[in-house]
Amino acid sequence: MTQTLVSSHKKEVIIGFDQPFCVIGERINPTGRKKLAAEMAAGDYSTVEADTLAQVEAGANMLDVNAGIPLADEPAILAETIKLVQSLVDVPLSIDSSIVEALERGLEVYQGKALVNSVTGEEERLEVVLPLIKKYGAAVVAISNDETGISEDPDVRFEVAKKIVHRAADFGIPACDVVVDPLVMPIGALGQAGVAAFRLIRRLREELGVNTTCGASNISFGLPNRHALNAHFLAMAASNGMTSAIMNPLHQEEMTGIMAANVLNGVDTNCARWLRQFRAPPAAGSQEEARHERRRRRV
Amino acid sequence: MTQTLVSSHKKEVIIGFDQPFCVIGERINPTGRKKLAAEMAAGDYSTVEADTLAQVEAGANMLDVNAGIPLADEPAILAETIKLVQSLVDVPLSIDSSIVEALERGLEVYQGKALVNSVTGEEERLEVVLPLIKKYGAAVVAISNDETGISEDPDVRFEVAKKIVHRAADFGIPACDVVVDPLVMPIGALGQAGVAAFRLIRRLREELGVNTTCGASNISFGLPNRHALNAHFLAMAASNGMTSAIMNPLHQEEMTGIMAANVLNGVDTNCARWLRQFRAPPAAGSQEEARHERRRRRV
Repeated sequence: MTQTLVSSHKKEVIIGFDQPFCVIGERINPTGRKKLAAEMAAGDYSTVEADTLAQVEAGANMLDVNAGIPLADEPAILAETIKLVQSLVDVPLSIDSSIVEALERGLEVYQGKALVNSVTGEEERLEVVLPLIKKYGAAVVAISNDETGISEDPDVRFEVAKKIVHRAADFGIPACDVVVDPLVMPIGALGQAGVAAFRLIRRLREELGVNTTCGASNISFGLPNRHALNAHFLAMAASNGMTSAIMNPLHQEEMTGIMAANVLNGVDTNCARWLRQFRAPPAAGSQEEARHERRRRRV
Repeated sequence: MTQTLVSSHKKEVIIGFDQPFCVIGERINPTGRKKLAAEMAAGDYSTVEADTLAQVEAGANMLDVNAGIPLADEPAILAETIKLVQSLVDVPLSIDSSIVEALERGLEVYQGKALVNSVTGEEERLEVVLPLIKKYGAAVVAISNDETGISEDPDVRFEVAKKIVHRAADFGIPACDVVVDPLVMPIGALGQAGVAAFRLIRRLREELGVNTTCGASNISFGLPNRHALNAHFLAMAASNGMTSAIMNPLHQEEMTGIMAANVLNGVDTNCARWLRQFRAPPAAGSQEEARHERRRRRV
């Protein structure tokens, strides 16, 4: 049973087939968030702080941290952000950058075993990112595209993932430390994007034995009622073996989908999380209410 | 690719792996509905009429018709109900009774190719129900329990389903006319009920090549926020190959789950059904709005 262990200085999280789905909060990312980008570039981390606390409060099991701001000193800002986030919360982090120097600076300051987001199947990337993963004993998100781009054929994407897993092994990184992103396409443009993703996720689990993750909201791009589509996509993907997603934990519908999938996949023991979230407060007139009422009157 | 064709006098519906999920409306059933039972026993079909129209309006592709009222003349009432429902709507029906005489009377009056609900793996049932299915050229729901009851072991339930499919073949009924109900247990009592159902549904599809159905709401029995659990169960089951369910189409959350599953399984062509349901009305100031406004002013 494949298990990817990631950790902070205080907490371990296991991504695995027999574990509750791992929600990786996506909010700490200035891409497309002009105000946040300007703040981070100016050394103002107030929004980062708020996003950190809100995501963990909403149930994120890990947080992705990205500092990709044009013309800014990304390695320095990423390191600073990681230090700040680790001072605020216990959850392990995913260190997210397309710049190798930023990944390394992030890994240098990170306390624990990080998830690095990401490496692709491009030779040039494999050669520089995998040694870093090995050096810092991290885990890595492997994106199933290569020099030829993103194939629409899920079998080609499977082969790219397989190549990355094999190359990682050459560097001494076990398959359990490679979390594959099968690349989810917008279903509004590509009607078979869902079944392609589900089939690929199942093959990655059954044939390669790896954990999987994805940017879930891409599936619903351009369509109405996106939250409902995302929520059911997440549950269906989890049913086919997907074990984590990079997503917005502040979206309640998606989180309900994840919680339902955990119940239905038998990894929410005694439905405890579900009951905690949704059990109605005791009705008026119930014993508990009555006790409370007696206590209140005594005051 | 397995296809179960059912029909009314006016309409064909195909239950199949490459088809939109088939929603079989469950409302015309006096079990647990005292008022409806009393009405039907007294020859008052006003609630049946309302339930018929409302379910088709809400998107049911078929309707289940049950007339199981204690001490009443079930065969006569079932036949009467079927005739009434067929006079009101075009969708094919599922004729639902545990009394063989009622099934036969229902089949006699039914116009089209019905789905008969149901036969079990019990010898006595197989011997009386299967000849009826053959005689009337119907399709049948096969419930995967037998004389020993309902096994908690999905492999045992698979073997029961296999036996029914083989026995049906002995009577000249093809596997495509057997729709297996894998029997979904309440997950609040049996934590592995979801994964057991998904695995069984997948085996039924891949190894037996049959369509499947279930009473979906059973999964959430005793738990809070049942609609969300049901909706995600339906989507996950559809992702594992379930092709129909007997359910309440008036529950919006469940229907949204089905519609999302159709989009994500690539069987809602161009997301047409999803767009029709959820696309926002044209914004104020849009061309259509403007035209409407001009027309209004002329009045």
